[in-house]
Amino acid sequence: MQTLLNQVKEIFDNEQFIFPPEHLYQPIDYTLRLGGKRIRPLLLLAANQMFGGNPAQVHNAALGIETFHNFTLLHDDLMDKSPLRRGQPTVYRKWDENTAILSGDTMFALAWRYFLRQPHPRLHDILNCFNETAIQVCEGQQYDMDFEQRQNVTLDEYMLMIRYKTAVLLAAALKIGALYASAPDTDIDNLFQFGIHLGLAFQLQDDLLDAFGNTDTFGKQTGQDIRDNKKTYLILTALQTAPQPLRDELTALFSSTPADTNPKVQRVLQIYSDLGIRSQVEQAIDQQFLQAASCLDQIQVPDQNKTPLRDLAGTLSGRKK
Amino acid sequence: MQTLLNQVKEIFDNEQFIFPPEHLYQPIDYTLRLGGKRIRPLLLLAANQMFGGNPAQVHNAALGIETFHNFTLLHDDLMDKSPLRRGQPTVYRKWDENTAILSGDTMFALAWRYFLRQPHPRLHDILNCFNETAIQVCEGQQYDMDFEQRQNVTLDEYMLMIRYKTAVLLAAALKIGALYASAPDTDIDNLFQFGIHLGLAFQLQDDLLDAFGNTDTFGKQTGQDIRDNKKTYLILTALQTAPQPLRDELTALFSSTPADTNPKVQRVLQIYSDLGIRSQVEQAIDQQFLQAASCLDQIQVPDQNKTPLRDLAGTLSGRKK
Repeated sequence: MQTLLNQVKEIFDNEQFIFPPEHLYQPIDYTLRLGGKRIRPLLLLAANQMFGGNPAQVHNAALGIETFHNFTLLHDDLMDKSPLRRGQPTVYRKWDENTAILSGDTMFALAWRYFLRQPHPRLHDILNCFNETAIQVCEGQQYDMDFEQRQNVTLDEYMLMIRYKTAVLLAAALKIGALYASAPDTDIDNLFQFGIHLGLAFQLQDDLLDAFGNTDTFGKQTGQDIRDNKKTYLILTALQTAPQPLRDELTALFSSTPADTNPKVQRVLQIYSDLGIRSQVEQAIDQQFLQAASCLDQIQVPDQNKTPLRDLAGTLSGRKK
Repeated sequence: MQTLLNQVKEIFDNEQFIFPPEHLYQPIDYTLRLGGKRIRPLLLLAANQMFGGNPAQVHNAALGIETFHNFTLLHDDLMDKSPLRRGQPTVYRKWDENTAILSGDTMFALAWRYFLRQPHPRLHDILNCFNETAIQVCEGQQYDMDFEQRQNVTLDEYMLMIRYKTAVLLAAALKIGALYASAPDTDIDNLFQFGIHLGLAFQLQDDLLDAFGNTDTFGKQTGQDIRDNKKTYLILTALQTAPQPLRDELTALFSSTPADTNPKVQRVLQIYSDLGIRSQVEQAIDQQFLQAASCLDQIQVPDQNKTPLRDLAGTLSGRKK
């Protein structure tokens, strides 16, 4: 696991991201050097090594998947008007909106450059997987924005949205790593599903952290989803659970855009606490981690090959190994 | 030529661009159905047929190149805050900024879907050509925005900028069409250079039309480049040609952002007229068309195979055939 982390760190530390014109590439370098957990390249390398792949062969794909992911963050931050990312100013704040648009677009093309650099007999499958995932990520972001305007979003619709917006890219990272190692198709399918469940768990945790985390450890403003009237697993569960008067109050709160949003955030958090939303969401997260573990179990490789991915899921779930 | 135009029209008329979520795809459908000259798919098909290619084989590439081009227009219109495109409201005006960002991103991915759909022994070269071109188009747009803030842009820098922003995509359309027809590399190089010169001529004409065209035939507001303090071939030539007092006045005008921009536009146009800028730019355009014709002459195919591209260049140059 530590070896994988070091491999990923080295790949990014040794890569050059600045070319002329520098106004275009400085925000790209800034974004890609902010770090973060680099989960997607980590998953890609881990999947590749699980099937005995050659790490040098997935070096470019690891850069590609993270560059794509950071492109989506850059544009999402602009669309969501988020001031902070990983505790630092977002690109549209540090530079301006046009810079965020164009540097983002360029990152998408740079991701393609990385993927196209490494020939492989299954390259066409790899590129298709990457691109269909990219389209779903865009669709997921659209559903997310649509849901802000709608009052009747169901939990099923929400789960589809986070599957597209978050889970498919984690699953694609694993699948691409496995494709480079020429893994059998049934194993690739199980690995993909492992990634989907891991991604869903990951997003539900993110929802939970937005409400109950703090800016020091999370690097974002707490309660931003509530301020933005975002439909999350928390509010949708609360609307299902709450008695009528509370449900009406929640609906009214999530239709309001007050100048001072702090009282709104405090009131919503109080209702979540009264309804026991935190433990309900934690149960849903556990469920996704269990399903992920079951998919991993079914993959036909020696058990010790699964250790890095099992450890990674364990770390993400916050449990002791 | 008419056959090619009909083929392109049919390809776009028969293609579906709307999928769920509809808020994402409606602006894409709107943009791709606005029409325009569809020069890039036309060039792609013409190049393919010049080398005896199979039209069915470049159907997807034609859709891909135009979808990519329209993605860049969509984001450029947002960055430039242009109200009109082809005489119709731009996407960020008809919908909103976030829609323009996300639907644009999705169009880039849809362009890739089209390119990935058609297998070919040289697909890797085709995808590399497309992607390196996409990166240059982004770099060109950045140079364009950089130049708005700079007072010392040279004509050489300007020519590099329009090469990236406009010419390389026309050249790439031709190259990709030729690659699908398995044309020889030297012919592909000449065809690419033909496209570069055609593209440069095309952009210089666009500069000229922005200043001297009218909204009826051009579909955009006249003098927008002057309002935006855009460095164009016109102003850079004027700055080279003008005596010192006029040069100072032009420099001051192109640093100003008055509330009412009409007097500024009128004064700049008057100076252009006094300096004979129009005929100087027309000469530069003719020069590019001549170089394009020379590249076309060197391609080793029967002369009648060149007729569509020769006609197309003739139509663009505004000359009678």
